[in-house]
Amino acid sequence: MPELPDKREAFIDWYLAAVELAELTDKRYPVKGMNVWTPYGFLARRRLDRVMEEEIEATGSRPVEFPALIPETEFAKEKEHIKGFDAQVYWVTKGGATTLDVPLVLRPTSETAMYPIFALWVRSHQDLPLNVYQVVNTFRYETKTTRPFLRVREIHFFEEHTCQLDEERASERVASNLAAFAKMAARFQLPYLAIRRPDWDKFPGAFYSVALDIPVGGARTLQIGSIHHYRENFSRPYGIQYEDPTGRSKFVHQTTFGLSERLLGAIVAVHGDARGVAFPADIAPYQVVVIPVPSAKGGDPTPYAREIEKVLREGGLRVHLDDRADRPGAKYYYWESRGLPLRLEVGPREAEAKTVSAASRLGDKATIPRAGLLAGVRTALGAYDERLGAQARKAFAEAFALATSLEELKGSTTVRLFPWCGSPECGHRVEEAIDGALLGTLEGAPPIPLGAPGACIVCGRAESTVWSAAGRPL
Amino acid sequence: MPELPDKREAFIDWYLAAVELAELTDKRYPVKGMNVWTPYGFLARRRLDRVMEEEIEATGSRPVEFPALIPETEFAKEKEHIKGFDAQVYWVTKGGATTLDVPLVLRPTSETAMYPIFALWVRSHQDLPLNVYQVVNTFRYETKTTRPFLRVREIHFFEEHTCQLDEERASERVASNLAAFAKMAARFQLPYLAIRRPDWDKFPGAFYSVALDIPVGGARTLQIGSIHHYRENFSRPYGIQYEDPTGRSKFVHQTTFGLSERLLGAIVAVHGDARGVAFPADIAPYQVVVIPVPSAKGGDPTPYAREIEKVLREGGLRVHLDDRADRPGAKYYYWESRGLPLRLEVGPREAEAKTVSAASRLGDKATIPRAGLLAGVRTALGAYDERLGAQARKAFAEAFALATSLEELKGSTTVRLFPWCGSPECGHRVEEAIDGALLGTLEGAPPIPLGAPGACIVCGRAESTVWSAAGRPL
Repeated sequence: MPELPDKREAFIDWYLAAVELAELTDKRYPVKGMNVWTPYGFLARRRLDRVMEEEIEATGSRPVEFPALIPETEFAKEKEHIKGFDAQVYWVTKGGATTLDVPLVLRPTSETAMYPIFALWVRSHQDLPLNVYQVVNTFRYETKTTRPFLRVREIHFFEEHTCQLDEERASERVASNLAAFAKMAARFQLPYLAIRRPDWDKFPGAFYSVALDIPVGGARTLQIGSIHHYRENFSRPYGIQYEDPTGRSKFVHQTTFGLSERLLGAIVAVHGDARGVAFPADIAPYQVVVIPVPSAKGGDPTPYAREIEKVLREGGLRVHLDDRADRPGAKYYYWESRGLPLRLEVGPREAEAKTVSAASRLGDKATIPRAGLLAGVRTALGAYDERLGAQARKAFAEAFALATSLEELKGSTTVRLFPWCGSPECGHRVEEAIDGALLGTLEGAPPIPLGAPGACIVCGRAESTVWSAAGRPL
Repeated sequence: MPELPDKREAFIDWYLAAVELAELTDKRYPVKGMNVWTPYGFLARRRLDRVMEEEIEATGSRPVEFPALIPETEFAKEKEHIKGFDAQVYWVTKGGATTLDVPLVLRPTSETAMYPIFALWVRSHQDLPLNVYQVVNTFRYETKTTRPFLRVREIHFFEEHTCQLDEERASERVASNLAAFAKMAARFQLPYLAIRRPDWDKFPGAFYSVALDIPVGGARTLQIGSIHHYRENFSRPYGIQYEDPTGRSKFVHQTTFGLSERLLGAIVAVHGDARGVAFPADIAPYQVVVIPVPSAKGGDPTPYAREIEKVLREGGLRVHLDDRADRPGAKYYYWESRGLPLRLEVGPREAEAKTVSAASRLGDKATIPRAGLLAGVRTALGAYDERLGAQARKAFAEAFALATSLEELKGSTTVRLFPWCGSPECGHRVEEAIDGALLGTLEGAPPIPLGAPGACIVCGRAESTVWSAAGRPL
């Protein structure tokens, strides 16, 4: 069996090898950065999508789908936004042999597709809030090195867009999105940092941006999502107005919430180990695989294995019977590297004793009686998830360290936390020192116990400092 | 309330008005033929997708997703295929300010995206069959008049692509697809015709094509799907070969199975009536809506309505509580025009008696006791689907008539069935006579009892004739 590169020493090499070994994607498609979702990768993605759908719909958001092509005329309406995306959009210029009168942009994100229609949908205060989301692919002409799930040119994307009565209601929606993401992340067993980006790093056209970041070893971080408050920055150019109860016309305040296939990359990055990928049970393409283990003494365990599979399937679990001709040991290795939470080994001994031998991806073993099979498997999956989450939270806490001087940022091997006064000058000095980015100011408590923030790490000003973080984004 | 155009007299006007009234789509998006999936339309589409996924995965097909952009170099490999699509593809020619070295086609269908990769996936006979499918959007630069769901430029599309050992196995896959579609159609309550297209009307690059057609009034028909046998027509140019057990290299035989959002249009067309859309229960965005009906005598039925909603939701039904301030009558009309299968009226009287008053989209009424609520609602939905299906099957049978001479085809007001010898000359004479299309030869028994086919309707030859159909495709 091939050995993976060391995750700590050579993270990106390890990541690429782990994704490859698990066959989550096929990178041999003849357009750079556009990969094929294999059957196994697609099943993981579908689970991610379902979790996102469930959690966002629980907050009253409704699914929609807007076209993938946006006329140049609409795309150009918000000045900052087009400046931010101009260099990385794909242009459709021809239909058949005809040159299009108005060139079309392949959506890099959907503000400019949705907002002309929102202007028609929103008339009165009774139409608000308008909370809709879509799960679609977006397209960006990346010039940097592409990496499966982390940086690709066709991106599987979740985007919520909302219209609210006023700035305060929009801030409440940001808070609601943060709460919804906390629920998703709990199901992914994924600890993260919610962090308000500095002004120079916010989304093009945003009033402010809250990013969802995870540490991925050393001082490296990965942005896995973002929530933006737009105030009236888009509603003015796109004319999204409503009549308030007194008959006055007002512009809506907008928010957006974006997630992408990077979440799958994050799950690989956080939970994977020397043996490959490890999926949380809620995301795993299969939660359980049943493996018949023939014995030299004879006796075919397959009928019993089938019975086990049927019971689990009817119990609502995602289960697969691996009855290929390969050796059991090769199958164990195969499913481990693909992140399977729980395998059930079923030999003549188990068939005789009416039990199954369970082994989790983290190495925990148990004998589960046939009589209490479904409950036993659920318990084992719960215990596995619990351990996976605890392991991830431990690594998360270890990824951060306090910095008390600019000196300590230099060559830092952890993400650094420090008090910052909020001035761009001090912020830029932080970025120079760590040779990376000021990630921003923390939303909520720091990930390690730190107390109240003291004087700014740069200028020493003591008032109005906020806990902030700096690292080296992937 | 607005009156819809007459469905028999002015089908297309009726169709457009019914779709509009149900708010399934928003046509005001500023690119012709690219429409917005509204929340309500999206929920119907999601149900359609789930039914397709379930039924195709039950036959061993696995989900994948290939990129939306196809390099010109791959697109051009199969000669007939590119000839068939050349006039209607969108071209991506620029990324940012850069002109692309190789222009990219926005997928009109995915043969040319998938098959270079299939050539890598298939090595040995043990890799076969390869049965995969994807649900994605495809793009066609339509020059004809666009119509929501029926003819659009961004098409929500289901496509299965398979590789088989030989021609016979590929024919078996075609039969398996036909069986899978029969199950889908039963859940949509949609009678249809499976018909092998004449050679001059097959899919570009196919060996033969079986279309799935429905009659939509008069002699008009609508193709809602198709299944193709490709033989080695694509596997040769794309090099999809395997080694057989004796070590010889062979080309695979391929099949494809395509369905699209047209299915939603078909459901509107077949089940709709003078009051608008009518959804089968399996597809309906909501199966049940609970409407509180306040009484002049007082007493708030809302808590009881909420209780009813909760029981049904927990029972696994898609249920919605409509507690808007509008009059109950206005809500009844609103949900009828949106095709709701079953509404439950809940007033103080019902709260007192511990019952609900049920009214189906077809006008059937019943009182369901609170004690047997879930079973009673399920029974009412079953009975509604049964009636909807019976009504559709009756109209389906009435849409066909035998033709015994070319004369009878002229100005026909039904789809016509007749024996055909299979010669292109006779086929083209049929097309001239009906001023439409020879749809092809029937797969399976005719939709009305007809016995064995006699002499060819054109040349009078008696041997090897097959029941065939002609009509005017929309």
